[in-house]
Amino acid sequence: MTRPLALHPDRALPHEPGVRAIAREILSQTEPLPLVSMHGHVDISVFVDNEPFADPAEVFIRPDHYLTRMLGSQGISREALGLPKPGTAAALPDPRRTWRLFCQNWRLYRGTPTRYWLEDVFAGVFGLTEAPAAENADELFDLLSEKLAEPGYRPLALLERFGIEIISTTDAAWDSLAKHSLLADRIGPDRVIPTFRPDALFAFTARGWKEGLARFEQAAGREIRDYPTLLAALRDRRADFIDAGARATDHGISTSDTTPLDPADADRIFQAALSGEATMEAEQAFNANMLFEFARMSVEDGLTMQLHPGSLRDYDAAVFANWGPDVGYDIPVAMNYSHCLRPLLEAFGHADGFRFVVFTLDEDVFSRELAPLAGAYPAMRLGAPWWFLDTPGGMRRYREAVTDSAGFYNTTGFVDDTRAYFSIPARHNLFRRVDAGYLATLVAEHRLGLDEAIETAIDLSYNLPRSTYPAARS
Amino acid sequence: MTRPLALHPDRALPHEPGVRAIAREILSQTEPLPLVSMHGHVDISVFVDNEPFADPAEVFIRPDHYLTRMLGSQGISREALGLPKPGTAAALPDPRRTWRLFCQNWRLYRGTPTRYWLEDVFAGVFGLTEAPAAENADELFDLLSEKLAEPGYRPLALLERFGIEIISTTDAAWDSLAKHSLLADRIGPDRVIPTFRPDALFAFTARGWKEGLARFEQAAGREIRDYPTLLAALRDRRADFIDAGARATDHGISTSDTTPLDPADADRIFQAALSGEATMEAEQAFNANMLFEFARMSVEDGLTMQLHPGSLRDYDAAVFANWGPDVGYDIPVAMNYSHCLRPLLEAFGHADGFRFVVFTLDEDVFSRELAPLAGAYPAMRLGAPWWFLDTPGGMRRYREAVTDSAGFYNTTGFVDDTRAYFSIPARHNLFRRVDAGYLATLVAEHRLGLDEAIETAIDLSYNLPRSTYPAARS
Amino acid sequence: MTRPLALHPDRALPHEPGVRAIAREILSQTEPLPLVSMHGHVDISVFVDNEPFADPAEVFIRPDHYLTRMLGSQGISREALGLPKPGTAAALPDPRRTWRLFCQNWRLYRGTPTRYWLEDVFAGVFGLTEAPAAENADELFDLLSEKLAEPGYRPLALLERFGIEIISTTDAAWDSLAKHSLLADRIGPDRVIPTFRPDALFAFTARGWKEGLARFEQAAGREIRDYPTLLAALRDRRADFIDAGARATDHGISTSDTTPLDPADADRIFQAALSGEATMEAEQAFNANMLFEFARMSVEDGLTMQLHPGSLRDYDAAVFANWGPDVGYDIPVAMNYSHCLRPLLEAFGHADGFRFVVFTLDEDVFSRELAPLAGAYPAMRLGAPWWFLDTPGGMRRYREAVTDSAGFYNTTGFVDDTRAYFSIPARHNLFRRVDAGYLATLVAEHRLGLDEAIETAIDLSYNLPRSTYPAARS
Repeated sequence: MTRPLALHPDRALPHEPGVRAIAREILSQTEPLPLVSMHGHVDISVFVDNEPFADPAEVFIRPDHYLTRMLGSQGISREALGLPKPGTAAALPDPRRTWRLFCQNWRLYRGTPTRYWLEDVFAGVFGLTEAPAAENADELFDLLSEKLAEPGYRPLALLERFGIEIISTTDAAWDSLAKHSLLADRIGPDRVIPTFRPDALFAFTARGWKEGLARFEQAAGREIRDYPTLLAALRDRRADFIDAGARATDHGISTSDTTPLDPADADRIFQAALSGEATMEAEQAFNANMLFEFARMSVEDGLTMQLHPGSLRDYDAAVFANWGPDVGYDIPVAMNYSHCLRPLLEAFGHADGFRFVVFTLDEDVFSRELAPLAGAYPAMRLGAPWWFLDTPGGMRRYREAVTDSAGFYNTTGFVDDTRAYFSIPARHNLFRRVDAGYLATLVAEHRLGLDEAIETAIDLSYNLPRSTYPAARS
Repeated sequence: MTRPLALHPDRALPHEPGVRAIAREILSQTEPLPLVSMHGHVDISVFVDNEPFADPAEVFIRPDHYLTRMLGSQGISREALGLPKPGTAAALPDPRRTWRLFCQNWRLYRGTPTRYWLEDVFAGVFGLTEAPAAENADELFDLLSEKLAEPGYRPLALLERFGIEIISTTDAAWDSLAKHSLLADRIGPDRVIPTFRPDALFAFTARGWKEGLARFEQAAGREIRDYPTLLAALRDRRADFIDAGARATDHGISTSDTTPLDPADADRIFQAALSGEATMEAEQAFNANMLFEFARMSVEDGLTMQLHPGSLRDYDAAVFANWGPDVGYDIPVAMNYSHCLRPLLEAFGHADGFRFVVFTLDEDVFSRELAPLAGAYPAMRLGAPWWFLDTPGGMRRYREAVTDSAGFYNTTGFVDDTRAYFSIPARHNLFRRVDAGYLATLVAEHRLGLDEAIETAIDLSYNLPRSTYPAARS
Repeated sequence: MTRPLALHPDRALPHEPGVRAIAREILSQTEPLPLVSMHGHVDISVFVDNEPFADPAEVFIRPDHYLTRMLGSQGISREALGLPKPGTAAALPDPRRTWRLFCQNWRLYRGTPTRYWLEDVFAGVFGLTEAPAAENADELFDLLSEKLAEPGYRPLALLERFGIEIISTTDAAWDSLAKHSLLADRIGPDRVIPTFRPDALFAFTARGWKEGLARFEQAAGREIRDYPTLLAALRDRRADFIDAGARATDHGISTSDTTPLDPADADRIFQAALSGEATMEAEQAFNANMLFEFARMSVEDGLTMQLHPGSLRDYDAAVFANWGPDVGYDIPVAMNYSHCLRPLLEAFGHADGFRFVVFTLDEDVFSRELAPLAGAYPAMRLGAPWWFLDTPGGMRRYREAVTDSAGFYNTTGFVDDTRAYFSIPARHNLFRRVDAGYLATLVAEHRLGLDEAIETAIDLSYNLPRSTYPAARS
């Protein structure tokens, strides 16, 4: 037996009728606003190639580690799903079989954000009217495949349809920006922009570090023989990114330590790394120093600095060896921001025009550390609930935890962070729903006027994500 | 003046009328289901002897450290309550006096789970119609004493009346299983089963460790002279427990470190312990190693492994010296699971048929660490809110914190954990109420169909507690 | 365009109509009760001089670091606000300009407790009917200034009008108590009382420590040449404070460690400090020891001991150098109470008549550590949500987190903690509203009778804050 699928207009709004009515009124003002998607992981090639997406398994299952980890946690292995191993071809060997397994296990997603997003995508973007089930798996596969083949479902057409005003990719420090230029020539500038993510350059002890550095030297057109030439090359590449439309850098290392090093010490560590002799401890000290230096560079060149720390990446060595990174085995750890961010904030927290956006996977620090910091330092903005916290409950708890000390205007509004292109509108829409609900509760408790709530909701949906990042240069 | 006592059918359901109506409908499907009580602390003798319970003070006050600690925190000491010191006779010197003190202080329990459970027991099991008060203390004592003397209030009769399908005791590694056999012969197998709890064997620096080890040698019928013979004896005893119907082991140490030792190092520590020279540090390393080894054994023999870490046991030395353990002076500490469980999970987290159930007293780790881990590793299931968290609010926060990343199907459903036999139905019933409320909210927010909510509620109430533990061998 | 300002009688009550009706009924019983304000930061001179308050900027903006930090976080610097640097005259150079900046930025406070309190003060105490805005800034400035000049707005008149039964100042160990005597002679004893706060005496490495010690010697009338004379002088001064009406001591250091030192070691550290050679580590050990010793002194002399740990004070060195302390740059850190309080609680947690009130800025410890401790030790009471947590949401989460293990009667009821004299009634009133809402929810969920809820609300509003501190000596 299959179940009907339909999007209720009040989904994810508060259930109490009085508050819901207020929330609806707020949402009616924010739901139509364009999407500002300043932090994402969709590859630039997707837009440049503008090819039809392959098939439902390739689109919805393979890249979505939320989805595959849930199946895995219930014993449906990546092998059983036919997921490709790193280095093998992209396409799933038998996408229909993969899709069936997913449909059969739809019930596992009850109550999860994956369920929420996929319902929005299936019903809202593809017009499906039945929820996935064992009985209709093949039928849905066909329906979705048909749609995916239509011109209206190609990447650039969807950019329009989704109302995405601007979207950012995430690019390694050594990545070519040629495709970004090409696309800008084709569809105009400031529509799909790069983000500078240099972490891999300082993972001295990781496999392939030297190869990455060599690629970076090539991209920067400079030999990097010491710490000063490294810094110079980074500055050059940041300028290249800015020329290509970049608005931000992104830093996704495990800790948030920002203690600077004496340049001589930094050089010593870097030389040791070049000789293959860097210790893990030295690597961490160097990374902390680089966060400090990147803040300095952002003060100089105006790129917004985004910090995404706190995940123990590639938690399981065997899983990593077999399947590579980003397959659902990154596990958060407790964070300390108050001590760790102090050097950076003392040095640059009051610098003119500096924007420093901090994210967390450890909810406990929202009320204890991040909101008090964002509520004091002009440079700092609180990033939206991220990754494991990018959920209806996580968003609600976030507003509850941070508004007291940071208010609304020291937060960024919604910043999505996904590889799942089709889910971007659902994610923004959900955030607008949860904020409408939170603001409606303030109105219902006579703590805010409805006019103020609506103005705030619009700011959170559109103006704050815009003002958190610099305007176009042109 | 006394107050009336009555159980409202909507107690602990959400108060908003629309959601409450949905919750009622869900609850109507789960309230009649049998109880699966796979982790408890009722002594096997209670069932084997099947004697009437002594008196209200002996039944409700003495064994309930939730209750006595609250009185103690308000200056009503264990002496004043006439509670027995360890080594003295079980019966309270003047149970009526103890009972009066409790009744006079009934107001202290407002808003607490103790109040909730006791109301359920007094009204639901004993049919009382007045709440405890100074004025009716003697009357209630008499009423309860009368009931307790009736045949229907003997332990085995209650097993039927409570709808307990299966209940587990907790047994030291050296405990005889003779009473379990006796009872199984009398009432059938798989009704009251043992659980293997070996912690005390590795508390090298605790009083009486050597005596415990000697008892274990006797029970195992083996001399234990080194680490290999220790492991062999543990394997033997686990087999004995399995033969007696056991489904699980339980591990209640203070940390959750699972780093294995080189067998030679483990042996060295164990030899030092035998010579009375183990340090606290060595003891901790050995315990971590044993968690790793117990996971290996569970993979081999199929016993579900339950981990209950995070309490600083016997916090107050003077209280412990005077009154012994389990008197309300165990205090939780902050936990780190992501790092600590990594060795165990990397080694066994994908092992076929392995079930690893993790509990916590530190709520912060639910969303940050435990839900992401349970949402990735097939072996791992999230235990129910435990001890200080086994409350209406604790249960609600638990679902809110874990469902995003772990869903419903990586949780165990309710696992009670109590010495208070009479409170078992109230505890299961409360969990069903809170889950009904949580699921009803999802329905009211249009995130779940009512049919799905009911199916999920039944799974959480009955099927998941069943499937978290192996089926009967017979 | 300006917005109307009016206090809704249901503000901050739960929005669901059924629960709100119950909450209203509870609140009607607690709203008229007198205020017990046992922990504050209003200077004794304010009451003794009883002068009119200067102007709106001086009254509402300058002393309120919640308010100025929010403006600062949005780039409106203390310079721009014309805030005085330490050592300069009290008055703001151009209060009207400061006030205008505040009014123009009123929207930044949406959803924050500052907004809530100020609305209560502006509408409730001053009768304003328009919310601050750029357009009406001068008009409001004039209106408020007029009122402030009226006799009914002088400090002592407000004491009556606010219904403050008793209020405490916070005084350094070396402060003269002459003004307290003077005021007691004038308006009667036990109305404005001192609190003994000795922290600065043990900040060996801070600027000006020696000068403070010299002032303390003078106040105590004793030479302090070693640890024993230090302890003796502290005991003498505590007696002076008791004579002047004090009921409590206050300790606001960064950690909560309470490990005692051997007296010889304490003396060695103190001697090193006298020679200017104390290390930071030694200072911390000495402070931990002093917490232990202060508990001992409280057991002896009956002063309630209040602990306010967990803030990284003066987080930003440049801000501190320019603007001094208490300007919004104190940032909380994660706390560990279970381990840290153990020595103190083991030694004195059961001592007759000892009252130990613990506060936290780290919400995570409420359910994990503080509620279990307060629910066991008779001496310990849980302080109210403090500072960053003294908010509608913080108060709600507090009750949710602590009631399970500590109940209501191991909490202190509301203890405000503010420099903002005018906000005291709003703060107490808010707490009564949130408690009314919390208790109403328990009633609506059939977990508490309305009569019990009302009795509990009155205890939390009045009786518990009274009984947490000793009665008047006279």
